[in-house]
Amino acid sequence: MIETKAYAAYTPTTPLAPFDFERREVGPHDVQVEILYCGVCHSDLHQSRDEWGGSIYPMVPGHEIVGKVVKAGEHVKKFKAGDLAGVGVMVDSCRVCDHCRQSLEQYCVEGMTGTYNTMERDGKTVAQGGYSTQIVVDERYVLSISPKLDLKAVAPLLCAGITTYSPLRYVNVTKGTRVAVAGLGGLGHMAVKFAVSFGAEVTMLSTSPSKEADAKKLGAHKFVLTSDKEQLKKYEGYFDVIINTVAANHSYETYLNLLALNGKMVVVGIPPKASEVPAGKLLDNRRSIIGSMIGGMKETQEMLDYCAEHNIVSDIEVIKMQDINEAYGRMLKNDVKYRFVIDLASLK
Amino acid sequence: MIETKAYAAYTPTTPLAPFDFERREVGPHDVQVEILYCGVCHSDLHQSRDEWGGSIYPMVPGHEIVGKVVKAGEHVKKFKAGDLAGVGVMVDSCRVCDHCRQSLEQYCVEGMTGTYNTMERDGKTVAQGGYSTQIVVDERYVLSISPKLDLKAVAPLLCAGITTYSPLRYVNVTKGTRVAVAGLGGLGHMAVKFAVSFGAEVTMLSTSPSKEADAKKLGAHKFVLTSDKEQLKKYEGYFDVIINTVAANHSYETYLNLLALNGKMVVVGIPPKASEVPAGKLLDNRRSIIGSMIGGMKETQEMLDYCAEHNIVSDIEVIKMQDINEAYGRMLKNDVKYRFVIDLASLK
Repeated sequence: MIETKAYAAYTPTTPLAPFDFERREVGPHDVQVEILYCGVCHSDLHQSRDEWGGSIYPMVPGHEIVGKVVKAGEHVKKFKAGDLAGVGVMVDSCRVCDHCRQSLEQYCVEGMTGTYNTMERDGKTVAQGGYSTQIVVDERYVLSISPKLDLKAVAPLLCAGITTYSPLRYVNVTKGTRVAVAGLGGLGHMAVKFAVSFGAEVTMLSTSPSKEADAKKLGAHKFVLTSDKEQLKKYEGYFDVIINTVAANHSYETYLNLLALNGKMVVVGIPPKASEVPAGKLLDNRRSIIGSMIGGMKETQEMLDYCAEHNIVSDIEVIKMQDINEAYGRMLKNDVKYRFVIDLASLK
Repeated sequence: MIETKAYAAYTPTTPLAPFDFERREVGPHDVQVEILYCGVCHSDLHQSRDEWGGSIYPMVPGHEIVGKVVKAGEHVKKFKAGDLAGVGVMVDSCRVCDHCRQSLEQYCVEGMTGTYNTMERDGKTVAQGGYSTQIVVDERYVLSISPKLDLKAVAPLLCAGITTYSPLRYVNVTKGTRVAVAGLGGLGHMAVKFAVSFGAEVTMLSTSPSKEADAKKLGAHKFVLTSDKEQLKKYEGYFDVIINTVAANHSYETYLNLLALNGKMVVVGIPPKASEVPAGKLLDNRRSIIGSMIGGMKETQEMLDYCAEHNIVSDIEVIKMQDINEAYGRMLKNDVKYRFVIDLASLK
């Protein structure tokens, strides 16, 4: 077994604290990755505090994992010791259903195996995430990472990156597409970067005037203050695509109004309460609302390769593992541009 | 001016009663149609009772109009006296916006001109509908009807028909597509007929067991009783497309659960209250909700030609104009299979 140092949530209400555990031995199809950096996703906080229910403790959060391969099983083809590698939101799936066969493993009919806070498919091992020094994963669920990119800034691509890249591709965002991004956080800032890179005309939608300069620094071309009725009126029926990253409760009506003919709002955030949809706003302009969840393994690799080619990474703030509880506090105040990334050297 | 006999709503609370008025003279691009039959749409009842607000009285409802051309203006190309013709939900639009140019006049940027309960584009004439003996419409908004079909059963195609045909085409329903239809009324029964005709596997979704035999008579292959949790469980993630014709208040969650990977629910009914959408149900299986409103002039003609070729008409019950108030009462109890059609001979 592989000794692993980590930080874990022990209960919903206590701070994360040191935790030692063992990873499984490297099997013939497994890759052992020494974790160098791990992004801090808002869902880490939700799950460590049991805000979605059913949390398994002690829980090592983290599903934006990058590091260096230290060992590859005898049948592993894609990796060798020394390669850079990543692990995202899932570490397994049934592999045989129609969706897995299409490499849409995130929609596995049996349910994908999340990277933490779930049981692995052996039914007895608790999956533990990336706030740790080592991880062992079947190579099918491990991504190759180019040495061209700044590794620590690659980590958030594994969740925030693919979650926004995949829907932009799904709705065919391309040169000239009018794309709006609602919400400027970990997901929103990646949506802006990708949409700009695909040649779209990109507009940030926000209730906060201070986000205008931030969004434009990321490449956004326009800014609409959604608390200003006149600005909303001006952009009625304007956008082909809205990437809605807002995870707070909200009605979809304000955004739907802004969609052009055949316009599509892609929802990637899950507000605690169901959102209201007035059907008339969908019938107007034949609008759609589409849900999208991360991306499959093939598309995640494609996204990472695209990022290497176009020099796209996340904007991050590096923290030590010991600072995680403070970082959670700052995340709750949106006091991060735009993702915390843990430097696991702090645990060694 | 053209003397026209009609039935009109004079107030929101009184029964429809006889009304005489004049249609405009036939202009160079106009077609005068002697109305032979007019379908009774649920929206006629809503508007005559001012349930959507802003109703204009006296109001002659009716937007499922078929009849015979009695006069064609000098520049009219598509019609001559004696031809069968139809008029649907609109009689005009701006004609120059991007949507009109695509023959998606129902999404006209300035707003289409409805067939009744609105002002015509001259700003002074009240548009009056098909519960009348004559109508004069620019040929751009008049449809050709094949003599092959039973004319009285064609009338509902102008609204119920195109409202279901258009979205089935938009989401590419074809041989083998798993289509479910929610709600078996005027719209639902046409959705079943079209989907069956396109080669889809068609399932009726209903809370009422009595609808099973009815739906199968229309060609549906399967029936799911949506009040039965076990049946719902069995069809979770099953359908590629759901045509949701339900106009009563409801949460979309039950239907979303039934959609397969990339499955699409098309909403064609407008419940009085906004419907609730739990985002998680959209993220699962990358599901969509799409709104669709009637169809453009080009597609409406295509639909009518398709119906002539495939011998598709509505299932109707013919009434006299004098029976309209009783018919409204029966519509409110869903006591019609599936559309009332007024025989305007009763007014002459």
